[in-house]
Amino acid sequence: MKSDREAPHGKAEYLRKPIKSLNLERIQTISELLEAFNQTSFQSRTLAMCANIYVDMLEDPERPTIFLGFAGAMVPAGMKGVVTTMVRKNMVDVIVSTGANMYHDFVEAFGEHHYVGSPDVDDLMLRKEGIDRIYDTYTDESRFGAVENMITFLADNLADEGLNSCSSRLFLYKVGKIIDEKGTKKEKKDSIIWNCWKNAVPIFTPALSDSSLGLAITEHHVKFVEKGRSPLVIDQIKDNYEILQIKKASSKTGVIYVGGGVPKNYIQQTAFLERQFGIPDAEHDYGFQITTDSPQWGGLSGCTFDEGVSWGKEKPGGKYATCYCDATIALPLIVKATLERCKNLDKRSRLKFKF
Amino acid sequence: MKSDREAPHGKAEYLRKPIKSLNLERIQTISELLEAFNQTSFQSRTLAMCANIYVDMLEDPERPTIFLGFAGAMVPAGMKGVVTTMVRKNMVDVIVSTGANMYHDFVEAFGEHHYVGSPDVDDLMLRKEGIDRIYDTYTDESRFGAVENMITFLADNLADEGLNSCSSRLFLYKVGKIIDEKGTKKEKKDSIIWNCWKNAVPIFTPALSDSSLGLAITEHHVKFVEKGRSPLVIDQIKDNYEILQIKKASSKTGVIYVGGGVPKNYIQQTAFLERQFGIPDAEHDYGFQITTDSPQWGGLSGCTFDEGVSWGKEKPGGKYATCYCDATIALPLIVKATLERCKNLDKRSRLKFKF
Amino acid sequence: MKSDREAPHGKAEYLRKPIKSLNLERIQTISELLEAFNQTSFQSRTLAMCANIYVDMLEDPERPTIFLGFAGAMVPAGMKGVVTTMVRKNMVDVIVSTGANMYHDFVEAFGEHHYVGSPDVDDLMLRKEGIDRIYDTYTDESRFGAVENMITFLADNLADEGLNSCSSRLFLYKVGKIIDEKGTKKEKKDSIIWNCWKNAVPIFTPALSDSSLGLAITEHHVKFVEKGRSPLVIDQIKDNYEILQIKKASSKTGVIYVGGGVPKNYIQQTAFLERQFGIPDAEHDYGFQITTDSPQWGGLSGCTFDEGVSWGKEKPGGKYATCYCDATIALPLIVKATLERCKNLDKRSRLKFKF
Amino acid sequence: MKSDREAPHGKAEYLRKPIKSLNLERIQTISELLEAFNQTSFQSRTLAMCANIYVDMLEDPERPTIFLGFAGAMVPAGMKGVVTTMVRKNMVDVIVSTGANMYHDFVEAFGEHHYVGSPDVDDLMLRKEGIDRIYDTYTDESRFGAVENMITFLADNLADEGLNSCSSRLFLYKVGKIIDEKGTKKEKKDSIIWNCWKNAVPIFTPALSDSSLGLAITEHHVKFVEKGRSPLVIDQIKDNYEILQIKKASSKTGVIYVGGGVPKNYIQQTAFLERQFGIPDAEHDYGFQITTDSPQWGGLSGCTFDEGVSWGKEKPGGKYATCYCDATIALPLIVKATLERCKNLDKRSRLKFKF
Repeated sequence: MKSDREAPHGKAEYLRKPIKSLNLERIQTISELLEAFNQTSFQSRTLAMCANIYVDMLEDPERPTIFLGFAGAMVPAGMKGVVTTMVRKNMVDVIVSTGANMYHDFVEAFGEHHYVGSPDVDDLMLRKEGIDRIYDTYTDESRFGAVENMITFLADNLADEGLNSCSSRLFLYKVGKIIDEKGTKKEKKDSIIWNCWKNAVPIFTPALSDSSLGLAITEHHVKFVEKGRSPLVIDQIKDNYEILQIKKASSKTGVIYVGGGVPKNYIQQTAFLERQFGIPDAEHDYGFQITTDSPQWGGLSGCTFDEGVSWGKEKPGGKYATCYCDATIALPLIVKATLERCKNLDKRSRLKFKF
Repeated sequence: MKSDREAPHGKAEYLRKPIKSLNLERIQTISELLEAFNQTSFQSRTLAMCANIYVDMLEDPERPTIFLGFAGAMVPAGMKGVVTTMVRKNMVDVIVSTGANMYHDFVEAFGEHHYVGSPDVDDLMLRKEGIDRIYDTYTDESRFGAVENMITFLADNLADEGLNSCSSRLFLYKVGKIIDEKGTKKEKKDSIIWNCWKNAVPIFTPALSDSSLGLAITEHHVKFVEKGRSPLVIDQIKDNYEILQIKKASSKTGVIYVGGGVPKNYIQQTAFLERQFGIPDAEHDYGFQITTDSPQWGGLSGCTFDEGVSWGKEKPGGKYATCYCDATIALPLIVKATLERCKNLDKRSRLKFKF
Repeated sequence: MKSDREAPHGKAEYLRKPIKSLNLERIQTISELLEAFNQTSFQSRTLAMCANIYVDMLEDPERPTIFLGFAGAMVPAGMKGVVTTMVRKNMVDVIVSTGANMYHDFVEAFGEHHYVGSPDVDDLMLRKEGIDRIYDTYTDESRFGAVENMITFLADNLADEGLNSCSSRLFLYKVGKIIDEKGTKKEKKDSIIWNCWKNAVPIFTPALSDSSLGLAITEHHVKFVEKGRSPLVIDQIKDNYEILQIKKASSKTGVIYVGGGVPKNYIQQTAFLERQFGIPDAEHDYGFQITTDSPQWGGLSGCTFDEGVSWGKEKPGGKYATCYCDATIALPLIVKATLERCKNLDKRSRLKFKF
Repeated sequence: MKSDREAPHGKAEYLRKPIKSLNLERIQTISELLEAFNQTSFQSRTLAMCANIYVDMLEDPERPTIFLGFAGAMVPAGMKGVVTTMVRKNMVDVIVSTGANMYHDFVEAFGEHHYVGSPDVDDLMLRKEGIDRIYDTYTDESRFGAVENMITFLADNLADEGLNSCSSRLFLYKVGKIIDEKGTKKEKKDSIIWNCWKNAVPIFTPALSDSSLGLAITEHHVKFVEKGRSPLVIDQIKDNYEILQIKKASSKTGVIYVGGGVPKNYIQQTAFLERQFGIPDAEHDYGFQITTDSPQWGGLSGCTFDEGVSWGKEKPGGKYATCYCDATIALPLIVKATLERCKNLDKRSRLKFKF
């Protein structure tokens, strides 16, 4: 926001809060570090602001519905546990994810792994070994086929049961049940999908087709089409319908964007969607984002919350912060500091959604 | 690719091609500039390489099927004309786009505009005026309602005609016909959707729900659900099925990624998808990408073609280049240089797809 | 600048200039392309603005003194010729450079080369071959020793002649003379140092010690100290004094930053320096910069011209633009478009400086 | 390094260490968080690697001499305390800094402050109030004049005492003494310059002229020149000579780069400098860097340690890591984790240098 409407007047008002040199010797906890970052500069300060806003969201007596946009290869990167903590501790109410993250979560729930690798490796050699690389992380392609078949069979079964179409939200819920029934006992407790299933946190993957989950459903599609049968349809417009109901039921909303892409835009547009149906004050009330993108490229992934104000996606005067940082660093710090500051989160009530 | 398998041995082999100081006084055309960039460094050289690869794709006697991934707010940014040139000149065969770009293309086909704006503006003031900001570009929100209604009516009509579900590809084709019938005479000739409709270039928008097109279809959905009728379903798995048929029909493929996100991943995974159905050698043969992202964040948007080799998305030994640059600069330069080098592109034959 | 003091009021004033879809088929020259970029978005538009400002600087009847900050490995990258064109065509009056660029320029004036290389190579293998890598560009270390000795001898001779200390500006001038006398006939005409020497364009390298030129002078220093003699001193404060004289003699100034680092900061601070001596209106009047850095990291290299206004480095209401782009792409485009627009630049008079 | 010389052979060797989903509920300390980051991905893992390497450097029985390159506005950002901790705890032996950081440290030692500000502010308003902005941080220009005069007087006095020239290292040492004598009692203990003075840690600022310290010395220069007297000369080549002595005295060296620019290049080139004098094995043995730059722009600031191997700046097989992150986040985390892991650092001996 470039307005000076509320700007201070007179030098003294600009110079109210001195920067405080960071004394590591007096800091013990992550929360204390982020507290100190309120009086340092640049992205350490925006990191502190993200944690402050997260606490504000959670402590707001009207407890906003909190949407998490979850992009980037966060599950292969080991960030799964951060999100499951958020789910278990009532720190998030709705997740919008890339299909890939949910796919990776699914395979890990059956005991498969990602591996510590290197970005400086001969990719052709990896190809020969059947190893897929995600920057500095490896996966064993050969292990995934059997797991993917479960998705194909799930789609087969749902179609057999007469379900013609479903939202990605419902499909992911059904996947949660599969994990509950067949997942590796220990691993499934770490699964985002399973925890969301258990805690009634809906997961939307608007571009489900654009992932290995979608590819597995395509196998089902081809099989059924060849048999002359109607395959299960993943109805992305029904996703819009369902998320609209959540938005409408929420008196306030907060948004968290880990990366950009579809998850960020999709959550942004819920405000738009609600307004389209004649509902005023649809803007999100709180928000923080972690991004490695920048505004100057003009894309949605790097855009500021200020820009969102012009669109009516964010509330003027709402609380917003953007931390430009790799999410594998920033997200754990923010969540940990918030956990340290907010007590008994898992015992507090929050809006739950029925479909 | 980090292999030195084919690396030169001995100093002389490393030092074969000297950098040539750029003499602007001898350069007249954009093609000459990019030619000279073959002997400069850093991103000017990768820009030159992208143009070289584009020429190679187009001049390959087996003429690969060329997929364009089109992300970022490229239509509001004025890049529409570059893509329509590519379509008219037979330089692209399949487009995978964000919904937003197609939405913006649609409204412009009815005479609406985007406007030169500023990133340093009071967004609250814009909000009051009903102006939406995309970094340094404005749109007039009030003008879009009537245009969006056409999308809602299109969905209504398709449902009325008994179409239960369709791919985003088919829906965009129908949109093309609407533009042909109702678009502003002059403006429609600049439309990507219309040119693709006219030239049988399929457009896929796997995350159609995640755009104002999707929101307009949601209006249809709500209306029909309230009436107790079955709304039109956009079947994203059918998109997978259809793009698979294109991939299978193509003996060779080339990929162009403008930005990342779903369009890039979706085209990448067609190789995966084909292999899943038992077809060998499914990797893409040529590729260049323009990105402002970087590999070190581990996301798909910034990943290298080398990484794609490990996944079997790209052919080892294929021709690939990545230019790290804002696409509004790099794309026009690459396309213009390619146009200058390849003659009679619009008269050459290419594979056309029937659905 | 975040002020809305001069902002438009009312929607119509925001929406005055429509984005114009780029029609490559109507564009022939680089100047035409950049002209069209005035009505596109994001970094293509800032590129257009840089060229506009460059033309404005050059066509200003008061012709400002133009300072070029020149950082990054621009000479190895082949950008030498762009700068020599700028020097020969009277497009730049003062250069502030890293030592490295001047070192690379020096060795090339004696027929040495940089080479087209690859960023994906075994650096240990290069080490064994005595090849130094600059991202995708190689140099042959073994060739440089003899050339460096000339710098050591130059320092020896200057000390022998009784010169106790000199500015880096004077030292580079002496290097220009060496190139004139001993440089390879053909190559020297491409040399930045030689062209500056011939055209009385001073070159400052405030951190001369931080380069191979500085290392060669260190050899002289050690030799003379061991002999108990006073070595030549490069007096960086004298650089400040000399550039202050230039600033004071200039009624207006324009700045061009290729990259950040010392060159950018050093030119920025000339305004500060002049004001420190009680001279008002010392701010620069025009400026454009090409950078791959971003503001959010808080460093000087990525800072905006707006920030410079707060410091009194830039004139409020001056003409400024920042293009976020690799300089090997943006600089040639800007200079070429400017050359096409401004005629007879080499015949126009400009302020020349005597020391 | 792109070599696969030491690469694993066979799938099992690639897939040895699984990614471990991050469990924040089990983590208490910053050291534990960074420990866990060894089994996550992307920049969280490189952050972990930086801390590991720092511990390795400090625990190496041959305790390398540790050089810190310190660029970016780190002191205004509140990072001063992190560096003073490093100095007091024997975690750094030599600092190479921008002049600006040392200037900011100097003024703070006299009770002046930087202030928490905003990047979205009217810079013209700030100008009128005499407030300088560094991204989101403010300074009060009016307070600095008196403090700067001390630098001018120091230069006057040194010249009066007959010191013709000195290295920036010696000048900063003299500044340390001034702080000791005149600095605000409480504040001086937080000063980097004072702590370095007290602990015999030399500080080099090769581009001293390029800072407000340099400007203050320029006042001295002008005054003395006008009086016909020889001003104090800051001899940057003597800096090279002195740092060469340190390098030669060190059997092993480790490097830490916070940001790029002159400090990084200057430390890099000490290896080069030593080799130039015929000393083999001059490469640095350990290194980590924190940067927001990227390799693809070809500049020194973003270059990898691998590239440094080709130049003989880094030892093949040495321990290196690059963390792409804002230093205001990454540096405190690395230093804190290292402090938690290494005990009694302040009681261990290290090489101290006499000049």
